[in-house]
Amino acid sequence: MSGATLTTGTHVREACRAGLLTGQTSGLAPGFAQANLVVLPADWAQDFLLFCQRNPKPCPLLDVTEPGQVAPTRAAPTGDLRTDLPRYRVWKHGELVSEPTDILAFWQDDFVSFVIGCSFTFEAALLRSGVPVRHIELGRNVPMYQTNIPCAPAGRFHGPLVVSMRPMKPADAIRAVQVTSRYPSVHGAPVHLGMPDQLGIADLARPDFGESVPFHDGELPVFWACGVTPQAAIMAARPPLVITHSPGCMFVTDLRDEELAVG
Amino acid sequence: MSGATLTTGTHVREACRAGLLTGQTSGLAPGFAQANLVVLPADWAQDFLLFCQRNPKPCPLLDVTEPGQVAPTRAAPTGDLRTDLPRYRVWKHGELVSEPTDILAFWQDDFVSFVIGCSFTFEAALLRSGVPVRHIELGRNVPMYQTNIPCAPAGRFHGPLVVSMRPMKPADAIRAVQVTSRYPSVHGAPVHLGMPDQLGIADLARPDFGESVPFHDGELPVFWACGVTPQAAIMAARPPLVITHSPGCMFVTDLRDEELAVG
Repeated sequence: MSGATLTTGTHVREACRAGLLTGQTSGLAPGFAQANLVVLPADWAQDFLLFCQRNPKPCPLLDVTEPGQVAPTRAAPTGDLRTDLPRYRVWKHGELVSEPTDILAFWQDDFVSFVIGCSFTFEAALLRSGVPVRHIELGRNVPMYQTNIPCAPAGRFHGPLVVSMRPMKPADAIRAVQVTSRYPSVHGAPVHLGMPDQLGIADLARPDFGESVPFHDGELPVFWACGVTPQAAIMAARPPLVITHSPGCMFVTDLRDEELAVG
Repeated sequence: MSGATLTTGTHVREACRAGLLTGQTSGLAPGFAQANLVVLPADWAQDFLLFCQRNPKPCPLLDVTEPGQVAPTRAAPTGDLRTDLPRYRVWKHGELVSEPTDILAFWQDDFVSFVIGCSFTFEAALLRSGVPVRHIELGRNVPMYQTNIPCAPAGRFHGPLVVSMRPMKPADAIRAVQVTSRYPSVHGAPVHLGMPDQLGIADLARPDFGESVPFHDGELPVFWACGVTPQAAIMAARPPLVITHSPGCMFVTDLRDEELAVG
């Protein structure tokens, strides 16, 4: 399967549905927003919807389905969330039990799907603005850290804010605030910069998730709310069944990155 | 003269013109933009206009008059720049020679007046956004520092960027970037944050202009381009004659602060 032909969300989703794409989506369908997926039974979905509403920076909702609905009406009306991701993860009581390429066998009529904005959109905007992004330059996963900041709890869901970190020169950090502020539905502006100890982060070289990246002289750490936050809250709650995307294997929507920009 | 009655730019200018207001304008005509004034003979004004064009962050022009024109058409069409400031400073060859309450006796037909945006506008916006501003809380003048960053030279004008500094918590610094980005004609977004040594500033407790302010735990220094930059460049060039506002005795315009906001 050549990535060169997958230039739209529809192309990527059709390739997934046909079993032709089972790996990472980074770089595919440039300009189209990619998203995190969380699928929960309806009785857990209510709490999770409230958790996202109360913590919009780490949990920016692009779309939420009705129970049993397989197409996310706003994000990709022709999509099928059961088949249109390259790979899924199925968790039972907090344990990973399967990593299938579709979830037809697991589907329930009471499943509610959450399509959650992802940092790819604002990173593309940073690069277009001439702001370098270290982990992309190095081909690594972004470093992520658990903080000492609690999310607002909702029902059975609670947990700390998880942040991603990008080292930047001060002038680039200022530009990054301006650029990412335009994208509130994909984490938006940074939540912190410069003082990791204030977040309870002792050592930037030892991220809790992802990979560490080096700092150059005169760079500050800039922190954004991260989509791992809701995943961590879900795993801690150990629902009987939850399905997510497999890391890096995102749901590619019909929404243009620029459609998500305010102003 | 009670400040309570001076609720518009017109009121303040009329009070100045009548000789009833000869002191600082801070807090008067809330919501109306206050401005720095620079008046130069036409043969020096050309270079200065180019200097401002090349250094818009420290020298944001709200209005520039034709030679001899006393009313700034955009900023205050009914104003008279010879009489409508509380107090002026007259400089000859770089030396302060007079601090009059009007400049009728000094006026020349070839004078070009520059009305330059001032940080009062963005500070008011910061306060409205709930971002504390230390020097305002303490009733002090803002601390200002000469940097190691050269302005783009223009003709006889050159010199370093001068910055003002406000200590802020990281989250407030991020909000301050968002808020002040809306006001490009009054210095706009910060030029730097967090690392004063990168600007050649050795000791924040010893500003080159204004007064020092204390830092609280966990605050970063946030730096904005400052209107003292063009003043310093003018003084260094030692033109035969230049007139400026007296510190704190600003020209109060008809422009609303919010009229200067983009978006």
